[in-house]
Amino acid sequence: MVERDKPRLGVAMIGHAFMGRVHSQAWRSATRFFDLPMEPRMRVIVGRDVQRSKQAAQRLGWVESATDWRRVLERKDVDLVDICTPGDTHAEIAEAALAAGKHVLVEKPMANSVAEAQRMNDAAHRARAQGIHAMVGFTYRRVPALKLAQELISEGRIGEVRQVRAQYLQDWLGDETAPLSWRLDKTRAGSGALGDIGAHIVDLTYFLTGQRFAGVSGMLDTIVAERPLAAKVAVAAGGIGGSAGGLGSGLGTAVEAPDAVGMGPVTVDDAALVTARLTSGAPVILEASRFAWGRKNALRIEISGSRGAVSFDFEDMNVLHYYDATQPARTSGFTRILATEPEHPYLEAWWPPGHGLGYEHGFTHQVVDLVRGIAAGEDPRPSFEDGLHVQQVLEAIQHSSGASHQWTEIHDQERS
Amino acid sequence: MVERDKPRLGVAMIGHAFMGRVHSQAWRSATRFFDLPMEPRMRVIVGRDVQRSKQAAQRLGWVESATDWRRVLERKDVDLVDICTPGDTHAEIAEAALAAGKHVLVEKPMANSVAEAQRMNDAAHRARAQGIHAMVGFTYRRVPALKLAQELISEGRIGEVRQVRAQYLQDWLGDETAPLSWRLDKTRAGSGALGDIGAHIVDLTYFLTGQRFAGVSGMLDTIVAERPLAAKVAVAAGGIGGSAGGLGSGLGTAVEAPDAVGMGPVTVDDAALVTARLTSGAPVILEASRFAWGRKNALRIEISGSRGAVSFDFEDMNVLHYYDATQPARTSGFTRILATEPEHPYLEAWWPPGHGLGYEHGFTHQVVDLVRGIAAGEDPRPSFEDGLHVQQVLEAIQHSSGASHQWTEIHDQERS
Amino acid sequence: MVERDKPRLGVAMIGHAFMGRVHSQAWRSATRFFDLPMEPRMRVIVGRDVQRSKQAAQRLGWVESATDWRRVLERKDVDLVDICTPGDTHAEIAEAALAAGKHVLVEKPMANSVAEAQRMNDAAHRARAQGIHAMVGFTYRRVPALKLAQELISEGRIGEVRQVRAQYLQDWLGDETAPLSWRLDKTRAGSGALGDIGAHIVDLTYFLTGQRFAGVSGMLDTIVAERPLAAKVAVAAGGIGGSAGGLGSGLGTAVEAPDAVGMGPVTVDDAALVTARLTSGAPVILEASRFAWGRKNALRIEISGSRGAVSFDFEDMNVLHYYDATQPARTSGFTRILATEPEHPYLEAWWPPGHGLGYEHGFTHQVVDLVRGIAAGEDPRPSFEDGLHVQQVLEAIQHSSGASHQWTEIHDQERS
Amino acid sequence: MVERDKPRLGVAMIGHAFMGRVHSQAWRSATRFFDLPMEPRMRVIVGRDVQRSKQAAQRLGWVESATDWRRVLERKDVDLVDICTPGDTHAEIAEAALAAGKHVLVEKPMANSVAEAQRMNDAAHRARAQGIHAMVGFTYRRVPALKLAQELISEGRIGEVRQVRAQYLQDWLGDETAPLSWRLDKTRAGSGALGDIGAHIVDLTYFLTGQRFAGVSGMLDTIVAERPLAAKVAVAAGGIGGSAGGLGSGLGTAVEAPDAVGMGPVTVDDAALVTARLTSGAPVILEASRFAWGRKNALRIEISGSRGAVSFDFEDMNVLHYYDATQPARTSGFTRILATEPEHPYLEAWWPPGHGLGYEHGFTHQVVDLVRGIAAGEDPRPSFEDGLHVQQVLEAIQHSSGASHQWTEIHDQERS
Repeated sequence: MVERDKPRLGVAMIGHAFMGRVHSQAWRSATRFFDLPMEPRMRVIVGRDVQRSKQAAQRLGWVESATDWRRVLERKDVDLVDICTPGDTHAEIAEAALAAGKHVLVEKPMANSVAEAQRMNDAAHRARAQGIHAMVGFTYRRVPALKLAQELISEGRIGEVRQVRAQYLQDWLGDETAPLSWRLDKTRAGSGALGDIGAHIVDLTYFLTGQRFAGVSGMLDTIVAERPLAAKVAVAAGGIGGSAGGLGSGLGTAVEAPDAVGMGPVTVDDAALVTARLTSGAPVILEASRFAWGRKNALRIEISGSRGAVSFDFEDMNVLHYYDATQPARTSGFTRILATEPEHPYLEAWWPPGHGLGYEHGFTHQVVDLVRGIAAGEDPRPSFEDGLHVQQVLEAIQHSSGASHQWTEIHDQERS
Repeated sequence: MVERDKPRLGVAMIGHAFMGRVHSQAWRSATRFFDLPMEPRMRVIVGRDVQRSKQAAQRLGWVESATDWRRVLERKDVDLVDICTPGDTHAEIAEAALAAGKHVLVEKPMANSVAEAQRMNDAAHRARAQGIHAMVGFTYRRVPALKLAQELISEGRIGEVRQVRAQYLQDWLGDETAPLSWRLDKTRAGSGALGDIGAHIVDLTYFLTGQRFAGVSGMLDTIVAERPLAAKVAVAAGGIGGSAGGLGSGLGTAVEAPDAVGMGPVTVDDAALVTARLTSGAPVILEASRFAWGRKNALRIEISGSRGAVSFDFEDMNVLHYYDATQPARTSGFTRILATEPEHPYLEAWWPPGHGLGYEHGFTHQVVDLVRGIAAGEDPRPSFEDGLHVQQVLEAIQHSSGASHQWTEIHDQERS
Repeated sequence: MVERDKPRLGVAMIGHAFMGRVHSQAWRSATRFFDLPMEPRMRVIVGRDVQRSKQAAQRLGWVESATDWRRVLERKDVDLVDICTPGDTHAEIAEAALAAGKHVLVEKPMANSVAEAQRMNDAAHRARAQGIHAMVGFTYRRVPALKLAQELISEGRIGEVRQVRAQYLQDWLGDETAPLSWRLDKTRAGSGALGDIGAHIVDLTYFLTGQRFAGVSGMLDTIVAERPLAAKVAVAAGGIGGSAGGLGSGLGTAVEAPDAVGMGPVTVDDAALVTARLTSGAPVILEASRFAWGRKNALRIEISGSRGAVSFDFEDMNVLHYYDATQPARTSGFTRILATEPEHPYLEAWWPPGHGLGYEHGFTHQVVDLVRGIAAGEDPRPSFEDGLHVQQVLEAIQHSSGASHQWTEIHDQERS
Repeated sequence: MVERDKPRLGVAMIGHAFMGRVHSQAWRSATRFFDLPMEPRMRVIVGRDVQRSKQAAQRLGWVESATDWRRVLERKDVDLVDICTPGDTHAEIAEAALAAGKHVLVEKPMANSVAEAQRMNDAAHRARAQGIHAMVGFTYRRVPALKLAQELISEGRIGEVRQVRAQYLQDWLGDETAPLSWRLDKTRAGSGALGDIGAHIVDLTYFLTGQRFAGVSGMLDTIVAERPLAAKVAVAAGGIGGSAGGLGSGLGTAVEAPDAVGMGPVTVDDAALVTARLTSGAPVILEASRFAWGRKNALRIEISGSRGAVSFDFEDMNVLHYYDATQPARTSGFTRILATEPEHPYLEAWWPPGHGLGYEHGFTHQVVDLVRGIAAGEDPRPSFEDGLHVQQVLEAIQHSSGASHQWTEIHDQERS
């Protein structure tokens, strides 16, 4: 009820697990802190189970709930569909939503295959002609320190990009007795560490450098090949819709077996190791792992250029380290920029300097950029075309890994 | 509209500047993440200006706005008053609210003098007999890493407390051309760095050790004695109700002079340096400064005991460092605990490990603890008695500073 | 003149540039801090130029100087030859020294090719039968924090090794106007970042895990393909035999061209990116770069196992970070072990806790281990066989890089 | 035997415990790395015990040993006396040495009282007229990062000094069962944490700001009031003259009682807490503690000025953090300067960038500055006058602590 005269943007969300919870907080918060050209209305949340969807609507602040996403697409008061389901459903929902004239925000990974992503991108191109927009949810682009890095690089503050090194390290699979979850099932998740977290550092490399990948060599590894099937677990009390239920505190619902006995196979990668080149030829090295004990969400990226470097670690997410190689050696060094000043991206809306932001704020900024893009009639980034590129890189990594690490080129399939 | 059958808790908020914004986000968010025994309703927000209060209500999510807080106290649908105004108004509003049978949450510093705080505490004692509760908003107690520290200490994990060292460093006054604001005016703010940020480390010392202060020696210093009067400044665009308006990005509205010419005196301290002892005799050293270039919100506290130590810095707010002196020297060291696990305080409601929280989450936790306390009929901490103690410490520091640093004992004025 | 009755160990050193300086400090210091079973005597230092060698002897503490290393090998008062020359001379000198019955310490990289390293290893095997020992100077093994890591891993404190990630980052080539030096000339240096610094992380991976490499995929990249030829530069004043002479402060003497005009080609790699597997199958990711602005000597290695992890960065060389995954999540985290306690490797000889060691101490420890090994009649590690393995890994990386990143197995050529 | 034609400087050292060991390493190393105008000769080392002094001479590189320091002063081949004994002997030896025409280097604290320090300063003034020089061993002034800080401040890079905050934290007394040592005996040590480590941060404040102290308020605290008397302990094996012998790894030889039964009193302070002002009025806050678990040698100092700040922690001794407040907020932050470049103080003599120095190097630099000063006929700093000032500050702190923290002015007793 922010302002009467603003155009409204009716939103439907599909899925109400971890991503649904954080997207909901973003939809609730964006208008409280940012002056948006449209007023989002949280119309309906969609889940498979009637009762749980109803509860989710109440808890997460949606007017109502539903169980059939196709019927939701028919609603005239829904202008945008926010897809927070597992990756194997993205393509079908996104294509249908775009065909129905709804703007789409889809969580990453955009899809489970290049073929799906290509279809989605085609659908987005068709929709764009009708003024309908689509975006992929690589939210780390909206962490202020990383957006600052992108701005500094695009302004030439590190010169030409020479090298990229990135890691995305977690440890929630380190315990080999942790049970199977859908995130370890290739048919649901598409891939493991590669698609889940590796996708982020692929996208960030692209976002920060402004360059696509020209080719890759990859190694995928499954460190623990089989895991216990989970018994039906009672949800832990405490939070609402919380992190309970097993593996990784909200990172995956355990796979329930009727008798909860025995082991099941892990069919995705636990770690992905990649060497690559950007279109300029600059070398890139990437690692994604869910077995890096002690690293909880260590998304790290460092880019060295001809005139300086930037370095970031999500475990200290309000900080960007910047090295200016044009300074005299005597006082040179990485400068620890606490990206919480009004001068920093998105920060004019928040708290005083040093009063840091958290994980969820990137999602709020995503809503802001998306709504502003839609209002301006401009395709917000990362577009489905951007998401398709990431998917191509992931697939090339998988191919290389299965082909003796052979160098595998990325042939961009952009529309001419 | 979380659950139909929960008792409702009608909330009125007085003030809608920086603190009003963050308290509003807390009231909006608490029920989304935590299962509360009562359902808060954001009934009314109160400000001096009709138009700005109305806008604030819309932006911050309150049903309506008002300009006369006394009439708001008469409303039957208001059960709790959240006081976010400058310190010189706290006593009057809190006493009236408690007398009217409203629960009270008052921002820190609780008051501008011990006399005021004593009156407020007396009022709280009277109200308690009627089942009415009062609490002071020292929200840093609700930062998960600091709450974890408190738990570890109370469990004996560092043994007996031997020493406390704490700093609260900011730099927003470093620029001597920054204009005067109400925070630099003793009649409004009560004191400077001492009451504004020093109060937090006094309270945290008390909270973490479980001990009150026995005596202090203090030095207050005004580093820049006069500053420009501000011209009427147009509010910067960008965020809503944002950080604009002058000194310190939301930390203070500049004092407007009709002609905006000339300089005015700073009547509060810029830095406070304190040595003290707890009731056990343990020595304490504290510093609060708004002139510490490069330190944006560096609230740091380290407590050494007979068996270990804990250390914290708000600029890395999701981390607690813990040293266990009972471990073998070979593998001893400070352990960097990323306090984002489900096992950590408040975290069961939030995101997966490593997906850090930000500044505002402490305020959400404050709402949670307050509502749970009220529902349980227990006085939530920090109580007004706790706040009174902090006020006594602050006043003793001021006294010592004016008396050649003379040791000044704290005589607790608890009710018998 | 430490103790009269100890057997003496006459030492000759070949080379007196950067490595000669630090080795000399090690020979001078070892007996002052450690109780050695033999007493090293610094008999003679060998260089190409009569005058400069004489000066080096005076400055670095050698009794005399010489210019013909072959004649030095004939001296009966020389028991050990310490080879500090560029890599292209190692094989010839080491083979001759071993054949002459002298113990050998050779700086890394052991050689410029596997063929050379194999010949050296054969020579070492023959010599061993005569009680003559050979060792390669991978001194980072003797940094106390890294030795501690090796001990913890071998004791099972991180369980089975699952992943290795390592980087060796420097930035002294970041400036593209820095002139050519012998280190950029393939015929002298063998390779660039790969052999110079990459060799260290290959060796450390082997040392810390106790496992050899099974195979690699590699990418070598030359970022700046040509550089200015250096004019004859006057040596900077200040230190003795200091860091002057151009590129990288002692890391390389500039290549002097008669007219100092024009550019010359860089014939080595500037960066090396590697994915690999250990014999257990554990994945490894490595990067060596001399273009990582702001990273001066950032040798970093992190090893994740089934029960914990260790992490190290040479820019904070007295610290080892250790994660014990068997601890409760509530107080888990990387423990920052300041490896300066008497309980830590080599530290019983040095200063009180927290009074850190520097770069040169690893070399002192190397002398200690070498002399103790010789006295005990045991081949000190890393042996020439160990060095050969590193050479094989480096060569496999080069091969893979030239073969489209193709997976390249390491066939150990150990003697049966 | 560095160079034939240089004037020689015969050195005698009194004391061969911890300080004797590190001073010896400095005398041995200085000429190896720096081009000195005089050639130091390590003539004689003096101890109380014949046999142990003889061993010390051998191990530490002195030509001979002696037991009577008065007779050593008569030797014509001794030009300089390096006093490394406990503080209660400094005045007597220094006065005698100066009277005998010997240059003097005396370890800190300069003396155990202002009266002694005054006598020593008077003696130094008389000697200076004869071309004889005296210096106090506050070696932290020679840590490159701290010397860099001093240079930046004196160049105006942080503007006018506004605030100083410093800590010197150790934890070697944290264990209350650690036995008594001479360092805990007021008659030998003069004071505890105050004089032993607090003296360093007093001196550094003076060195870095260029300002003396105008007044202080202090609190001294003895946390563990009595400790076990030590039995005669066999010296641990391993290093030479090592860290064995009890409390604090070389920081103090345990007090041996005949029967080694029972407890003895600690007669010095365990912690010192100080607030102070410089002559400009700038406030200073200092803490020295040997009970700060997990802090091994955390000498930390941060100085905030009107235009920036510097910050240092000895546990990361090669790094200086520098904040330049004249930079735009967008890229401002503390810059982590790895003070290992040729452009940094003393570094032209050492290793390439990032190849850090250790604790002992400050002592080597001290020898360098001392010898250069003597050769130039200039009194090297810190002079005895400087040391006297530190002594006055320490005494004022003790006085204030005993006088209810009363503000205590420092009346400089400089010679007119």
